[in-house]
Amino acid sequence: MGTSTLEEVFKGEEKPAAALVPQSKYSKRVVLKSVLGRSDGGVGLVGERVVVGGWVNSHIEVKKEEASAVPVVARMARTESDKVTCVEILQTRVPLFRSILKVFTPHHEKERREAVVPQPVKAVPSTAYLQVNDGSSLSNLQVVLHSSTAPIGQFTQVGTSILVEGIIERSEQRNQVIELKVEKILHLGFVNHDRYPLAKKRIPIEDLRTIPHLRPRTKTVQSIARIRGALSRATHTFFQNHDFIEVHMPVVTNVDAKVFSEKLQETTEKVDQQPTSMDDDNGPVNLRVVREAIKEKADRINELSRSDSNKEALVLALQDLKKTIGLASELEENEKQGSKVTYNTEQEMHLTASYQLHLESYACALGNVYTFGPTFRAEKSLPSKHLAESWTVELEMAFADLEDVSNCAEDYIKFLCQSVLENCPEVIKFIAKRVDNTLRDCLESVATSSFQRITYTEALEHLEKAMEKAPEGKTEWGLALTEEQERHVIYLSTNQVYKKPVIIYNHPKDVKPFFVHLNDDGKTVAAFDVIIPGVGKLVRGSQKEERVDKLNQRMEELGLSKEQYEWYLDLRRHGTVKHSGFSLEFDHLVLLATAQRDVRDVVAFPRS
Amino acid sequence: MGTSTLEEVFKGEEKPAAALVPQSKYSKRVVLKSVLGRSDGGVGLVGERVVVGGWVNSHIEVKKEEASAVPVVARMARTESDKVTCVEILQTRVPLFRSILKVFTPHHEKERREAVVPQPVKAVPSTAYLQVNDGSSLSNLQVVLHSSTAPIGQFTQVGTSILVEGIIERSEQRNQVIELKVEKILHLGFVNHDRYPLAKKRIPIEDLRTIPHLRPRTKTVQSIARIRGALSRATHTFFQNHDFIEVHMPVVTNVDAKVFSEKLQETTEKVDQQPTSMDDDNGPVNLRVVREAIKEKADRINELSRSDSNKEALVLALQDLKKTIGLASELEENEKQGSKVTYNTEQEMHLTASYQLHLESYACALGNVYTFGPTFRAEKSLPSKHLAESWTVELEMAFADLEDVSNCAEDYIKFLCQSVLENCPEVIKFIAKRVDNTLRDCLESVATSSFQRITYTEALEHLEKAMEKAPEGKTEWGLALTEEQERHVIYLSTNQVYKKPVIIYNHPKDVKPFFVHLNDDGKTVAAFDVIIPGVGKLVRGSQKEERVDKLNQRMEELGLSKEQYEWYLDLRRHGTVKHSGFSLEFDHLVLLATAQRDVRDVVAFPRS
Repeated sequence: MGTSTLEEVFKGEEKPAAALVPQSKYSKRVVLKSVLGRSDGGVGLVGERVVVGGWVNSHIEVKKEEASAVPVVARMARTESDKVTCVEILQTRVPLFRSILKVFTPHHEKERREAVVPQPVKAVPSTAYLQVNDGSSLSNLQVVLHSSTAPIGQFTQVGTSILVEGIIERSEQRNQVIELKVEKILHLGFVNHDRYPLAKKRIPIEDLRTIPHLRPRTKTVQSIARIRGALSRATHTFFQNHDFIEVHMPVVTNVDAKVFSEKLQETTEKVDQQPTSMDDDNGPVNLRVVREAIKEKADRINELSRSDSNKEALVLALQDLKKTIGLASELEENEKQGSKVTYNTEQEMHLTASYQLHLESYACALGNVYTFGPTFRAEKSLPSKHLAESWTVELEMAFADLEDVSNCAEDYIKFLCQSVLENCPEVIKFIAKRVDNTLRDCLESVATSSFQRITYTEALEHLEKAMEKAPEGKTEWGLALTEEQERHVIYLSTNQVYKKPVIIYNHPKDVKPFFVHLNDDGKTVAAFDVIIPGVGKLVRGSQKEERVDKLNQRMEELGLSKEQYEWYLDLRRHGTVKHSGFSLEFDHLVLLATAQRDVRDVVAFPRS
Repeated sequence: MGTSTLEEVFKGEEKPAAALVPQSKYSKRVVLKSVLGRSDGGVGLVGERVVVGGWVNSHIEVKKEEASAVPVVARMARTESDKVTCVEILQTRVPLFRSILKVFTPHHEKERREAVVPQPVKAVPSTAYLQVNDGSSLSNLQVVLHSSTAPIGQFTQVGTSILVEGIIERSEQRNQVIELKVEKILHLGFVNHDRYPLAKKRIPIEDLRTIPHLRPRTKTVQSIARIRGALSRATHTFFQNHDFIEVHMPVVTNVDAKVFSEKLQETTEKVDQQPTSMDDDNGPVNLRVVREAIKEKADRINELSRSDSNKEALVLALQDLKKTIGLASELEENEKQGSKVTYNTEQEMHLTASYQLHLESYACALGNVYTFGPTFRAEKSLPSKHLAESWTVELEMAFADLEDVSNCAEDYIKFLCQSVLENCPEVIKFIAKRVDNTLRDCLESVATSSFQRITYTEALEHLEKAMEKAPEGKTEWGLALTEEQERHVIYLSTNQVYKKPVIIYNHPKDVKPFFVHLNDDGKTVAAFDVIIPGVGKLVRGSQKEERVDKLNQRMEELGLSKEQYEWYLDLRRHGTVKHSGFSLEFDHLVLLATAQRDVRDVVAFPRS
């Protein structure tokens, strides 16, 4: 073969039958959402021949001789009893079915054992009712498979993947309108029940963190992924509706490939290279080579330190250098040699953790800009609250003051909640059932309430009044509010526990960064925080100091290096404008919209 | 003050007059786009009082006594002669104006000197015609300022920011319908001409890289930012139209704040913390403390190395450890001590450079997923072609094969080009004038042509035929095609030089990663590359190997550690499906859509 064309390649494959239902554009099958999501539940498609694919969520097997009387509930072989399917609801709700179920309970246990030890297909004809999901929505399609078509035992394990061709038929069960009667198996992906971690009963979300690669297969993690996706989409929509331009900020700037990771071996990119290059890092490391690399790197650092715009490159270069030196000292240790290595570490190391300052550079040219990407933090904190890496939305607006930017933050948060309510009703329903049945109310409350605005000083007064009831520590003016105090402020200022977001603004200048606009009182700055009930501080924002003299003065007070912020001062020296911005912790937003409590559970790959 | 409410704070400020024109929602002014972007060019707003803000792009000053006859062209004081404004077009096109212009040329030179050395406002009444842009679009508004309102000299420097209130009037000039007659100055941000790098004449784009913080103020960089933003938006739109769920992949996984950057000082996040925390890193570093840190970190690494899912944490932990050890050796050097430090570096270091493998984990649960974020590369390459960090779009589809995924890539690229054509006509026009007048044709060609599909083997045959004419080196079957060869293939297979994208597929297995689906011939794999004329390889994609035995075999052939890919094999062990994906280099896409040649010029902050 070798030179076969695409046409030839695909000629040899199973060609699905033509279907009147909308075919998936980039998959030779019908996406379940386009069938189950119809207003008629799919009943208008009865009689159609379709190809569907997906994974088995649960199943019921019915032996032929029993099938005639009550086909659905006999001889259960539940492999994942926590998945609530329509069939299951039927089983638990209808008294008649319940009593029949009892009769067959012993069989249930026996069947489970059979499933664990794969056996040759038995002669007794049977029918399997598989609940199949393809990820296009949370809904399952009931797929009906007769033992005459294929050996049923191979299809019933949770997680088994199938691609089947069949006819859509009207279902006789109460909670589903249609089902698919399988005529042809196009693909089957087995599951090894003994080794499959998700074969067990419902697994706590904390334990799912230990199987990050399989965790997306659970409905809970899928629901979170859907909401996260919807929030991301809503973010872009909101800013684009208001003519913001998206800017992709660099995570690590001013670095070239050589300095960046000369000695780092990558996991996945590696395999994308030619095989010959894979051996580069496996060879023994020579001390001479390492020393040469150190010299080279030190030169590079000197070079970088002379350039004003290369702060981040320096971080990396220094990091890299120190690493190399570490390697050298290890080698020296090994070789029991006493040779000395000297290098220059006078430069400070920097790692950008927020794009706010750099975003100002774009706002002072394009007006309204935003960025959405990963940021990094170095503080120690609870792993359930903050991750070292988290996605952050940051925006900056020229010709905007504190009032403008806090209005924008409020509208944005409301828009996000409204979007999720409108676009993910099925998911919200699922989460409400599984996790927190107040989720919808909570989102509706945020989406519709007018955020409470209070100054830092007012917040402090509230707290002082409450001191008798709940002595949460000192409330001295000038200190930052603790989380406990912030929550208490919400309680006091709204009379609705955890029901209404609060914007606290005009903080003492010492609890906010140097770049925040100093108010006329000389004591407070034009900063604001948005605090959401149950989630905490979701947004931090401020009007920036546009007056170069005030900015200089503040930097002097704090002993900040002017040299380092020369570029930042330039933005004020040349055509300065009032400008404001905020940043939103996206992971916390997802917590809010999914009723989760641990930030590790709302990211793609949790850190365990 | 201290406890003033938002209302009080803003009461003291200049309140703009009520305007019938659409007020910017988060800025107390009218955005220029909403005036200039009207179908009537703004003429329906004549007589309206509005507040506008923006930066001065260029200006013309007219002394009172000359103003009456030909107000526009007299006494030019161009400070940025490269900006082509309507007025300039007028000047160059109308013969009458040209001759008048000649008469006044000596004044031009004199006026420029005056501008450089700021002087007290002169008594002669004059009018300034300022071309003002606020970043909302590429168009300028002509703002007319009389010397009776404010000292004109302060407003005429390029880059000066203004916020002014005035009346929209019909303009007497041919190429602009309206202008704003200023009545009140609300804000003025000076420019120090001598220190302002953009005060010079047109600066080559290469030189702009040295002033990354000011570079967004140029029309060229703004145009690129707009196109990049439009492409980003189109990306999300395309995938959402096809029901893909966005997944935010971690850049660095499995790392906690403590390990991550205990000794790193951040640039910008730092200042967001309380001042007290700023001193943490400034104190003298004690060798004992460092040694303790090393022990702690080594323990952490041992802990991490026992967990299967913590590869990336290990990278960081090792990196951190080595850094600390470097620090220790430096201190030891300083203290002239001979104490030895030992640590464990048996673990390999990994840095994720592609999300493809991890994305499969989500595709095998949610069906269609995509991610869009920064990725990192370690190979050395031309800085104009590849950056160490670049934004990448990656997608993965379950139940999809090579044909499906290459169709998806083609549709996606076409959609992107079509979107830019539809949404950025003004920007394309500008780039066509400044950079490359074939840009529109090029984008239209990609958007409408049917991509040419040829196998690797066919590509090789083409090349062999062409060997006499253009001997570009060896064309032995089994070697990867060079860029030169790929370009040549496009030429040969389309008979249209650089006009039609080509999809090359079915490569020899050794030039593609281990995870690509092996074709039945046992020699080629189901991979594809999309090659765009003038840009090169924009997309790499493949159908993944879904058969666990074939995958195992390939990994053995390449000597890959099975332990490391245990999780990846799991995706095949449990419910495997055919699945395919691709990745697109977003920076290269922006090159294509902006007719730029150097990738450093299309990112937010270029690396110099």
